[in-house]
Amino acid sequence: MTVREHTLSHTQTHTHTLYCMLHSSTSLLEGAMSAVKLEEFRERIRKELDTTVDFWLQHSHDPLHGGFFTCLGRDGEVYDELKYVWLQGRQVWMYCRLYRTMDRFHRPEILEAAKAGGAFLRKFTRVPGAGSGQWKCAFSLTRDGKAVKIQRTIFSECFYILAMDELSRVTGDKDMQLEAEQMMEQLISWVREDPAGLGRPQLPGDVPTNSMAVPMMLLCLVQQLTEGGGAEVVQKYTELASWCVQQILQHIQRGGTAILENVSVDGAELPGCQGRLQNPGHALEAGWFLLQVSAQQKDEALQRTAIDKFMELPYQNGWDKEHGGLFYFLDVDGHCPTQVSDDACQYYVAYSVNLKIPAPHRKDKYRTMELEWNMKLWWPHCEALIAFLMAYSHTREPALLHRFSEVFEYTFKHFPDAQKGEWFGYLTQEGKVALDFKGGPFKGFFHVPRCLYMCERILDDMLANKD
Amino acid sequence: MTVREHTLSHTQTHTHTLYCMLHSSTSLLEGAMSAVKLEEFRERIRKELDTTVDFWLQHSHDPLHGGFFTCLGRDGEVYDELKYVWLQGRQVWMYCRLYRTMDRFHRPEILEAAKAGGAFLRKFTRVPGAGSGQWKCAFSLTRDGKAVKIQRTIFSECFYILAMDELSRVTGDKDMQLEAEQMMEQLISWVREDPAGLGRPQLPGDVPTNSMAVPMMLLCLVQQLTEGGGAEVVQKYTELASWCVQQILQHIQRGGTAILENVSVDGAELPGCQGRLQNPGHALEAGWFLLQVSAQQKDEALQRTAIDKFMELPYQNGWDKEHGGLFYFLDVDGHCPTQVSDDACQYYVAYSVNLKIPAPHRKDKYRTMELEWNMKLWWPHCEALIAFLMAYSHTREPALLHRFSEVFEYTFKHFPDAQKGEWFGYLTQEGKVALDFKGGPFKGFFHVPRCLYMCERILDDMLANKD
Repeated sequence: MTVREHTLSHTQTHTHTLYCMLHSSTSLLEGAMSAVKLEEFRERIRKELDTTVDFWLQHSHDPLHGGFFTCLGRDGEVYDELKYVWLQGRQVWMYCRLYRTMDRFHRPEILEAAKAGGAFLRKFTRVPGAGSGQWKCAFSLTRDGKAVKIQRTIFSECFYILAMDELSRVTGDKDMQLEAEQMMEQLISWVREDPAGLGRPQLPGDVPTNSMAVPMMLLCLVQQLTEGGGAEVVQKYTELASWCVQQILQHIQRGGTAILENVSVDGAELPGCQGRLQNPGHALEAGWFLLQVSAQQKDEALQRTAIDKFMELPYQNGWDKEHGGLFYFLDVDGHCPTQVSDDACQYYVAYSVNLKIPAPHRKDKYRTMELEWNMKLWWPHCEALIAFLMAYSHTREPALLHRFSEVFEYTFKHFPDAQKGEWFGYLTQEGKVALDFKGGPFKGFFHVPRCLYMCERILDDMLANKD
Repeated sequence: MTVREHTLSHTQTHTHTLYCMLHSSTSLLEGAMSAVKLEEFRERIRKELDTTVDFWLQHSHDPLHGGFFTCLGRDGEVYDELKYVWLQGRQVWMYCRLYRTMDRFHRPEILEAAKAGGAFLRKFTRVPGAGSGQWKCAFSLTRDGKAVKIQRTIFSECFYILAMDELSRVTGDKDMQLEAEQMMEQLISWVREDPAGLGRPQLPGDVPTNSMAVPMMLLCLVQQLTEGGGAEVVQKYTELASWCVQQILQHIQRGGTAILENVSVDGAELPGCQGRLQNPGHALEAGWFLLQVSAQQKDEALQRTAIDKFMELPYQNGWDKEHGGLFYFLDVDGHCPTQVSDDACQYYVAYSVNLKIPAPHRKDKYRTMELEWNMKLWWPHCEALIAFLMAYSHTREPALLHRFSEVFEYTFKHFPDAQKGEWFGYLTQEGKVALDFKGGPFKGFFHVPRCLYMCERILDDMLANKD
């Protein structure tokens, strides 16, 4: 080694040492700052959760028949008495989860409302199904429990199971838990063996598809049914959980650059509008489901996929760089897709978007469209908050906390109703309140409180570990 | 009579005479002016009809399987190959009607396309129904005719009948005409006797309602099947036509101040969102159906009702005084209604409106909402043009021509695509193009050409009578 080389080497080492010292103190500083920041987040989230719970406790209960009104106007006034089963089940689940796991919600009125909701569900929701000896859950009921509509999908049943399992954990009702597990068996059979019991006519052009909602919901139910359970129950659902994960991963398409909502059962892209649909909120929700699995199984590759593909891609493709917020729908090629489905009217029309259109597909089609696709809906933001905070808590990558902060800032600036409580659900692209009701057929006591609950718990854990 | 009285009387008479002379010459002048104006309307309408027909002739035909692509982008490019049966039937009907009744469209390529569309429909649309020996029409088909979806309503069948009847008039195919009449019998039985064949489960909370679309469609079919027919066929459908008219008139609600889209079978207002829904475009369409009946039956009271209730009210309640154009949906009380239906996803969500809300219901709820309800859609404007022009032609009341002019001006300023032909379908409240496709699951070769065709014919008749 020459003197010059030595000097250079020494200089480098010295520089490196200095850099490490600097970096270390920056990290310490960042750590202290982020603890303060996390505390701020938790404070805001905790208050918002309290307000939200109060709103639904005050306005949604039906003292006459049990169950919950979910069509609530801005002030909480009931503008329609129909009872939507998805939302009945979700509210029972959420009340029980809060009652069971958070001290400040371990209150009799919450338990009583959950039990009344559960009784209403058990008494009225189940109707004879198409399959021999099978039954279905209605989609909507009159105030006094008469079935109004039945969907030919699995989702009412999913939320029924969610409600029954969680309620049985609170009440200790073993029959109820058994019922949830039996319904789960039927669901699995509809999805993986024979869908005839759903009542859909078998049509030659209606080929089976892998719609992300189905494995996602099943995975969610596996998490519910196995939560805190012993090896036996975990074992029971291990194969199903793996199947769900594989089904979800099939939605990574276009050479890993997009999550598409519907793919073939072989995991190929489908033709037409249905195949090109992107739903960033759904992808983000799938992301944190996958992240939970990756943590349970200590699967680092799955953790990476969950973050890079199911969080970062939907954010990159779905975040509105001009006005902030997540778009509701996107067509991966920028066409004008229209999706008609009698199962998911919420997703009735999906529209193209004037950003992220690959140049060859773009032509002169920079569009300015303003129907549903570009609206900012509450629930994708809820899912994004859970996803990025959970991802940060698992990895401590600052970029993920930054994403969370960005979504948090947009969400808390635009969605909560400071005057009347709870959140608005539907904003224009520019972030104005488009529809000011607090509850409707698809907005109930679920996405907002689940998000706030999950985030508060994650923050509790992170801040406890810091101390 | 005193001198003063006489003088006064004379003066009054003189004034009256002068007034009459003046009024008469004004009328003459107005008459001449309106003839010029009507000629201008006709010229513009005729050109637009030509452009529209050219667009669909050029872009929508499937040379491989017959039938029509209806998902057409702005330039006419096919962005989805699904074939929607409503639109297949409507396009066959419209082609045949143009071919049969307008010299300039009596062209072989139009007839051939209609025949190929008819053959596709006959071959693929009918699928076994729920009732014994009954069949249903699919809602959508793959490009090569495999059934994808079946709705549990009557509308696919309605447009099938419309197509078969009109096509049989062009081809002289008696079997086809018989088939249309047989299907009509089945439809009537579903609507008036037993809906089991539609495949809807009988649910205790799903009480029968009078939804305006049903009697409207049946009345439309009666008009089709009896058009140009002898006494026998007219006689055959007389009772049904009267029933349809009575069913439609039941939708006049709130003491004659609103047309509500859904009422009970006894003609009472229904509770909740469903009951409060207003759909101005639908009411206007019903208006010109009723007007046709009133003319055939020389029923002046019905004519007055058609105009005052089914045209003037939807205009008063549904016209946007700020930006012009007709709103898509309105809630009669200004609530935030949400309507979930697996039969009419197009009407999925109906929203309240910040105008015409009676003061007691208004509270602090002047809303600025921007989802579907306040969009300006092409078809309500098409129906309004037909309604007001037909009403003017029947009554010669200048106010009705004024209404027509107002709708015409808005419509022709905002909907036609001067660059690429045909009309945009979905505008924002402010009149910007929100979605730039020319065809989708619910927009095909129907409302635009039917409107232009009807208006051109009405103008032809009026201008011929002037000469």
